[in-house]
Amino acid sequence: MLENKNQERTSLEQLGEFGLINHLTKDFPINLKSTIKGIGDDAAVLNFKDKRTVVTNDLLVEGVHFDLSYMPLKHLGYKSVVVNLSDIYAMNAKASQILVSIAVSNRFPLEALEELYEGIALACNFYKVDLAGGDTTSSTKGMLISVTAMGEVREENIAYRNGAKPNDLLVVTGDLGGAYMGLQVLEREKEVFKVNPNSQPDLEPYSYIVERQLKPEARKDMVVLLKDLQVKPTSMIDISDGLSSEILHLCKQSQVGCKLFEDKIPLDPTVISACEEFKMDSTLVALSGGEDYELLFTIDQKDFDKIKGNPNLTVIGHMTDESFGANLITRGESQIPLTAQGWNSFSG
Amino acid sequence: MLENKNQERTSLEQLGEFGLINHLTKDFPINLKSTIKGIGDDAAVLNFKDKRTVVTNDLLVEGVHFDLSYMPLKHLGYKSVVVNLSDIYAMNAKASQILVSIAVSNRFPLEALEELYEGIALACNFYKVDLAGGDTTSSTKGMLISVTAMGEVREENIAYRNGAKPNDLLVVTGDLGGAYMGLQVLEREKEVFKVNPNSQPDLEPYSYIVERQLKPEARKDMVVLLKDLQVKPTSMIDISDGLSSEILHLCKQSQVGCKLFEDKIPLDPTVISACEEFKMDSTLVALSGGEDYELLFTIDQKDFDKIKGNPNLTVIGHMTDESFGANLITRGESQIPLTAQGWNSFSG
Repeated sequence: MLENKNQERTSLEQLGEFGLINHLTKDFPINLKSTIKGIGDDAAVLNFKDKRTVVTNDLLVEGVHFDLSYMPLKHLGYKSVVVNLSDIYAMNAKASQILVSIAVSNRFPLEALEELYEGIALACNFYKVDLAGGDTTSSTKGMLISVTAMGEVREENIAYRNGAKPNDLLVVTGDLGGAYMGLQVLEREKEVFKVNPNSQPDLEPYSYIVERQLKPEARKDMVVLLKDLQVKPTSMIDISDGLSSEILHLCKQSQVGCKLFEDKIPLDPTVISACEEFKMDSTLVALSGGEDYELLFTIDQKDFDKIKGNPNLTVIGHMTDESFGANLITRGESQIPLTAQGWNSFSG
Repeated sequence: MLENKNQERTSLEQLGEFGLINHLTKDFPINLKSTIKGIGDDAAVLNFKDKRTVVTNDLLVEGVHFDLSYMPLKHLGYKSVVVNLSDIYAMNAKASQILVSIAVSNRFPLEALEELYEGIALACNFYKVDLAGGDTTSSTKGMLISVTAMGEVREENIAYRNGAKPNDLLVVTGDLGGAYMGLQVLEREKEVFKVNPNSQPDLEPYSYIVERQLKPEARKDMVVLLKDLQVKPTSMIDISDGLSSEILHLCKQSQVGCKLFEDKIPLDPTVISACEEFKMDSTLVALSGGEDYELLFTIDQKDFDKIKGNPNLTVIGHMTDESFGANLITRGESQIPLTAQGWNSFSG
């Protein structure tokens, strides 16, 4: 759980609640002008001037969203920030502040939380957001992380889920299925380790997909790119639960249908080879895998020339009249209705 | 756990994550002009115009912050909102939106969550705030509630913790110690119930203090009152961890000392009699009990006439030079340094 197994372990009781949050957050700088007051009062005070405020909150629960047997705490801290920032970017907004609250059992020493906060600090620095508040408390079992992310955006630039029109092009950033296949590799290695604790896994061939799972990035760069290209998405969402479920969200809220072309779905070669190895269908993995944190958006056809040829952006289909429904057009040109196979954390 | 033990139980698996949050939040109205977009997109969109945004987040963990054996879920929902709004009011701000995320194990049926959200809806309606977002997910054990509260305030009206000056008067709203003594009564009844499950507790004599514990209110009314009286606190904090610890926060951040007069601490007669019954010192209960969610603030002496005689406001001391330290002046006129005996959730 700790990177350096020999370091000292300081129990959380020694610090108490007030000492703990002060200790963990003492090195976090406040960089943004919009952060008037960060940690240290009853609430953070922010100044978004004439821009709109966007805000989102997510919980990450040990044993449900992460497994500390293969998730280093620094990565977990980083990822817990990233998954929330992704929601801010999905509004076409600039992320600015986060609040992080954690509940942990006494099994975690101080040094474990320091690693977690190192990862949080890395993400804050990389994405240029301020840690502006939060809370630490105890739990009766395991670790739980709550992240609230905030951002700012001009009214006219907000990309909601409900603005797609028939004939709009459906575009996705990056490639899909990597995070899910990375998880399959890690779960397999965990089983091997259980049988033989001396086994040394060789994750090198899987480094891309394992990193997609353990250290995903949010597509801040794509929000900047779209602005530079002067493209405003007519609708946008981030891919946390799998392409299929996100397309259905856009269709439902925009009251449109969709044609998604199987042969257009961007897949990394590593994902394809891992799917072969695990005997999984790569299209199904892209549709239902989730946790890729890419952006999925629609644009007016007239904007196609602006994005054409950009290696980060792939047109995977187009929106249709609502009566058509949301359908996958397979390589064999048959038409299959998309279903929400998004990850359901209450089952299994 | 459920008020009506005979009603149907619907398992959470039947609904899944997406269905669940939609179901629970479908009847929540959006009332405020500042809520541009509530639940249903990647993030909420808010418009605070030329005001500052204040934001705070808290976690409530089953077995640490609440005990469902005597805390009805509707009350829990209400209280989880109230404790966060209290932080917004402590900035002298107007609370406007909340995001509520919950993690629950499969032991909770849908109907339990409906009760929880009934309490959340009651609080939203009473305090005139919009539920603007949130998330539901599963936990491996128990229930955890994360609430993010937001508010708005004009820059010049913000009351930080760090503005108190020597000779400022120290003022508290309402009375103290009730929530803690209510907890003592409930814990005692729980022990009695364990021995004899047929016992019928008579909580009538304790109704005030039990209500202070189970259904606390945040002092929105006091923020309005201070505005009406044209009093701007020089510093302010809410009393969640006990008077002593909150005074020390104000002193430390304002770099002042304090004289707190024991005979001025406002105590309800029910609290005094419960302290006698439980053989507890009522001053110690007020100093260390916590969860009263009253406001503690300092005002310039020239504002004294404006608050004088108001039954909701009690002057309990005054600030001093930092070198004096923070001290309790007892009824016997001896001087005792205040210590942070605020509730430490990592011990015990």
